[in-house]
Amino acid sequence: MKTHTLLMPLDMHIHFRDGVMLQRVAPLTSYCFSGAVVMPNLVPPVTTLEALKAYKQRIKNAIGDGGEDLDEMSVDAFEPFMTLFYKNYDRDFLESVADEIIAIKLYPDGATTNSDGGVKNFDIEVMRETLETMSELDIPLCVHGESNGFVMDREAEFMSVYETLAQNFPDLKIIMEHITTKDAVDMLDKYPNLYATITVQHLLITLDDVAGGMLAPHLFCKPIAKRPEDRDALLKVALNAHPKVMFGSDSAPHPQHAKESCGCAAGVFTAPIALQVLCELFDKHDKLDNLQSFISDNAQSIYSVCPEFKEVILEESDFVVPAKYGDVVPMYAGKTLKWSIEEVL
Amino acid sequence: MKTHTLLMPLDMHIHFRDGVMLQRVAPLTSYCFSGAVVMPNLVPPVTTLEALKAYKQRIKNAIGDGGEDLDEMSVDAFEPFMTLFYKNYDRDFLESVADEIIAIKLYPDGATTNSDGGVKNFDIEVMRETLETMSELDIPLCVHGESNGFVMDREAEFMSVYETLAQNFPDLKIIMEHITTKDAVDMLDKYPNLYATITVQHLLITLDDVAGGMLAPHLFCKPIAKRPEDRDALLKVALNAHPKVMFGSDSAPHPQHAKESCGCAAGVFTAPIALQVLCELFDKHDKLDNLQSFISDNAQSIYSVCPEFKEVILEESDFVVPAKYGDVVPMYAGKTLKWSIEEVL
Repeated sequence: MKTHTLLMPLDMHIHFRDGVMLQRVAPLTSYCFSGAVVMPNLVPPVTTLEALKAYKQRIKNAIGDGGEDLDEMSVDAFEPFMTLFYKNYDRDFLESVADEIIAIKLYPDGATTNSDGGVKNFDIEVMRETLETMSELDIPLCVHGESNGFVMDREAEFMSVYETLAQNFPDLKIIMEHITTKDAVDMLDKYPNLYATITVQHLLITLDDVAGGMLAPHLFCKPIAKRPEDRDALLKVALNAHPKVMFGSDSAPHPQHAKESCGCAAGVFTAPIALQVLCELFDKHDKLDNLQSFISDNAQSIYSVCPEFKEVILEESDFVVPAKYGDVVPMYAGKTLKWSIEEVL
Repeated sequence: MKTHTLLMPLDMHIHFRDGVMLQRVAPLTSYCFSGAVVMPNLVPPVTTLEALKAYKQRIKNAIGDGGEDLDEMSVDAFEPFMTLFYKNYDRDFLESVADEIIAIKLYPDGATTNSDGGVKNFDIEVMRETLETMSELDIPLCVHGESNGFVMDREAEFMSVYETLAQNFPDLKIIMEHITTKDAVDMLDKYPNLYATITVQHLLITLDDVAGGMLAPHLFCKPIAKRPEDRDALLKVALNAHPKVMFGSDSAPHPQHAKESCGCAAGVFTAPIALQVLCELFDKHDKLDNLQSFISDNAQSIYSVCPEFKEVILEESDFVVPAKYGDVVPMYAGKTLKWSIEEVL
């Protein structure tokens, strides 16, 4: 049977949430990833060292707990890479947290789930002190890059903000999170300090899958999936192991009732299926050898991190995606994937 | 209190469905409209004279029944204008049904709810005999105009089909149903035999309302709402009483569970709120005097119909839209509209 081994997979953008949901989902990631960049958009957002440390401890507790389905899973070798919610921070504070965080995550106010209190307008001068200090301390800036315009234009309209940031802070590492457009892909080669994460779903779906047939709440996320030519541009850089592109699932669990209701929350839950789907996708395009770069090596270089050892052996055998994990419906629920996780060492 | 009277309102595109749903929704339309063009996409579709007559009788029965909420409603003066599902019909058949139908409705195969068995490719020569006979017998062709392409492009891509039809059958009245784009609006002035219906929702919403905030299943329909500039183009011709534009609600009831679920069916239910919403909208733009053309007069001219007398008096007083009609959630459920129906004579 065909197998493929991934070393130290990293998920550079994950939502673990908190409380019961955290208990449910964190072990699904720690099982097969060496580390994950944990988003800070709790309610209230993570903006203090105390909140950060307490959240990290809750994550570690959740991972330690394992969960009833995961008793045989290897959860030891996992590092939650913590982030703060962007606001203007002073130098003293940034120096005090620099060793505790991997990045600071910037949300435009109201752009997505729990983003209230984010940046309202991108006045560079107001942000300059914080961003310059981050540059000096080598703290990357992760950005949810959407304007408040028409839904299909939001990411493209945000490109001017990325350009302003990249030009004004040439030593700041700026990660364009969960990019969905050809416009964003094109930015990668324009500025040396711009990088990107890409989700599983944006390599696979377009708006057609969300709203072209039946409306599909479990494929609805922000940014929304775009046009076929956008998906193809994302796929191209991922498959070809573009060195500035990393995997970030943006896996975002919501209870089923919050997805299948009158107003459906944004977020696709992919944490437990991401590696299997990516193996199938890269294999289909005969690019399996490039998956290691996308899933770990690029992120290690960009973020200068050395994750703990983990070896995930996948094999080409059917994996039927569970209908639910707890009360969370994953992407491809009930569907059969061609690759499964055979062993985690 | 400010009032506005509409004479013989007509809904030139309605889905009554069948069975229990028909019983529920038909009286809501017959209460405040003089007539409605009833879509034939039942399962199986209406393609024979027997099926057509039987369906018309079921509609009349449903209207006669009234329903528990509607005992005081005026349902006498209502005509269901019947349609057949397009396929290639011969002259004998068309002559035999000409007096029983107002139009024939063409669906591209698989384009929307219950459209299986529709036209698979638009080979004009294959359709020529039917369409020429329809021209001669003065039977209009109503068209669901969407390609099978990317969801935001489907209507625009269909414009070439409209052009081919309009050019090849200059005496055929062709109704572009529920148009959603500036492209379709622009076609109106290009060919004398092209007309259009517009829904309530497409005068008000864009894709932002469907998928820009939370995902809104009750605003999901086919064709999907498009861009702001499209909505503005539709609004302009409706408000200005463009003589080739008619109101057609495309009101499409689905049970709540079929909308708020893993895969949400297409259709917005507006029948019982359409007149109130349109009054509010036209009044807001200071175009209330043009609503009569949009809601009835244009359709009477285009279709050469003389509906039975009905006078609907609306007043500028709050109307709280019910959360549900039976198990059907209407557009704007629970919201307060500024205009209400005061009396129907």
